[in-house]
Amino acid sequence: MNTLSNAGEDSIIQTLTARWPRCSGRMLHGVGDDCAVLSGGSTKSVLLFKTDAIAEGSHFLPTHPGLKIGWKAAARCVSDIAAMGGKPLSAVVTLATPQTTSVRRLDSIYRGLEACAKAYGFTLSGGETIASQQLILSIAMLGEAPQNRVLLRSGGAPGDHLWVTGKLGGSLRGKHLTFRPRLDEALWLAHGQLATAMMDLSDGLASDLPRLAKASRCSFDLFLETIPITRGCSLEHALGDGEDFELLFACSPKASSRLAAAWPFRTELTRVGVLTSPRKAPTLLPTCGFDHFKKR
Amino acid sequence: MNTLSNAGEDSIIQTLTARWPRCSGRMLHGVGDDCAVLSGGSTKSVLLFKTDAIAEGSHFLPTHPGLKIGWKAAARCVSDIAAMGGKPLSAVVTLATPQTTSVRRLDSIYRGLEACAKAYGFTLSGGETIASQQLILSIAMLGEAPQNRVLLRSGGAPGDHLWVTGKLGGSLRGKHLTFRPRLDEALWLAHGQLATAMMDLSDGLASDLPRLAKASRCSFDLFLETIPITRGCSLEHALGDGEDFELLFACSPKASSRLAAAWPFRTELTRVGVLTSPRKAPTLLPTCGFDHFKKR
Repeated sequence: MNTLSNAGEDSIIQTLTARWPRCSGRMLHGVGDDCAVLSGGSTKSVLLFKTDAIAEGSHFLPTHPGLKIGWKAAARCVSDIAAMGGKPLSAVVTLATPQTTSVRRLDSIYRGLEACAKAYGFTLSGGETIASQQLILSIAMLGEAPQNRVLLRSGGAPGDHLWVTGKLGGSLRGKHLTFRPRLDEALWLAHGQLATAMMDLSDGLASDLPRLAKASRCSFDLFLETIPITRGCSLEHALGDGEDFELLFACSPKASSRLAAAWPFRTELTRVGVLTSPRKAPTLLPTCGFDHFKKR
Repeated sequence: MNTLSNAGEDSIIQTLTARWPRCSGRMLHGVGDDCAVLSGGSTKSVLLFKTDAIAEGSHFLPTHPGLKIGWKAAARCVSDIAAMGGKPLSAVVTLATPQTTSVRRLDSIYRGLEACAKAYGFTLSGGETIASQQLILSIAMLGEAPQNRVLLRSGGAPGDHLWVTGKLGGSLRGKHLTFRPRLDEALWLAHGQLATAMMDLSDGLASDLPRLAKASRCSFDLFLETIPITRGCSLEHALGDGEDFELLFACSPKASSRLAAAWPFRTELTRVGVLTSPRKAPTLLPTCGFDHFKKR
């Protein structure tokens, strides 16, 4: 029987959403990017729409503080909205939880959601609670971006330089619960029209870069020696750990030099590769990216 | 320890969301109604935002066909958008599933989502899949309504008549998987400005009516002998089974007579009570409404 554990995550998502339109009516870009893009009420801005979920045992542990779990659940969505060049507006929360969970723990998780909402300027607008065997938080977020500034994964072209923010790898040591989505950096890139394609790194560069390259109909060269690695981690960790929540973006060679000179943030910025012709073979990467359904 | 099984669902939600603003910036109405209301890009329309979830074992069984499960998951959200006087625009889907689920079953569930999207005119815009111990579908939906036609739970006044569509009770015999959200009926009511307050019946009239009355700062008289009961069900079933997904709305006595004369649908319409002064005691109801966290 074809189950999720013997098919890969990307392949499953492709199978399940194969019949979904990519563009239809008010939906300008459907499944396949960090967020969906919908036309808004005005011609100046578009809506970004995203859902994301974390489960106890996979994305957090019973020993982790509720505050950090709530922060993580919401910040993952903020990171996706940011990666499209948008600002978060509003979130709704589905809480699936065992009946034995203490109200105190749930309250602490909700305080984490609230801290993230305050830090990134969105409102918590509604929720749903259901009884379940496992604690799961699913957050749907609505964001907004200027219509002509939305950054898709598909906008890259051969020759574009590839950049990442921050350092990669080792997120499980704690960063996966406390990371700060790169909202200011993303808005700056979008506003300056410096990036041609962008996404956030959630499953690890080795999984995510091929997705950006494929969406842009490109291949890629990755300069393995330049990858910014978190102290104490190996290159394999940097490529495959996942949950970095850094930005990966493409940038024309011309804009690249402007970018490096003008970058106003303390956040590290590193050129890690180049998009190439789709006929070229990509850099061979260890298959270490995170796949939710792979047997471990 | 205070856990979900010894506190009630309403009380938990109130505790967890007590600090959330009800109105802030672009959010015109937050938690506490069928959907949140956000100002849109134009002054003419508002956005409705909702999340809802169903779990295997609670809302559906392993023996239920995937098509019906997908339909139910999406139709529940459509019902909430309709109950505010809006049209559904777009949905995103979080699928939490055991790794052993067959791709075939998931595909069937997704076909159910697609059937609902086609029937009610919204797009499936994105999704998230995670591995979990239990099959759970969480759907977030975005809808739209004319700004001056949004129907809240809080718009009722003492003296308003209470109406319900359809028949109540016995949903577990099958209707809970195949119901048709009352979108046309709700849009007609909203367009004609006939209702003062509205909600959909998801937990049963005995649970939901007190919520509408409380939001409208009213008490209520329920005419128990008039409740439209599904054939083969008792009054207790009609009041407490839940998952009717019919509309409950309030209507001024003057509009009530117009309503009965002008109702253009084959869907049954029944006057079941009246909103009263908050100082009056409400009709005593059996405490049989559905509570997700009550021990059974």
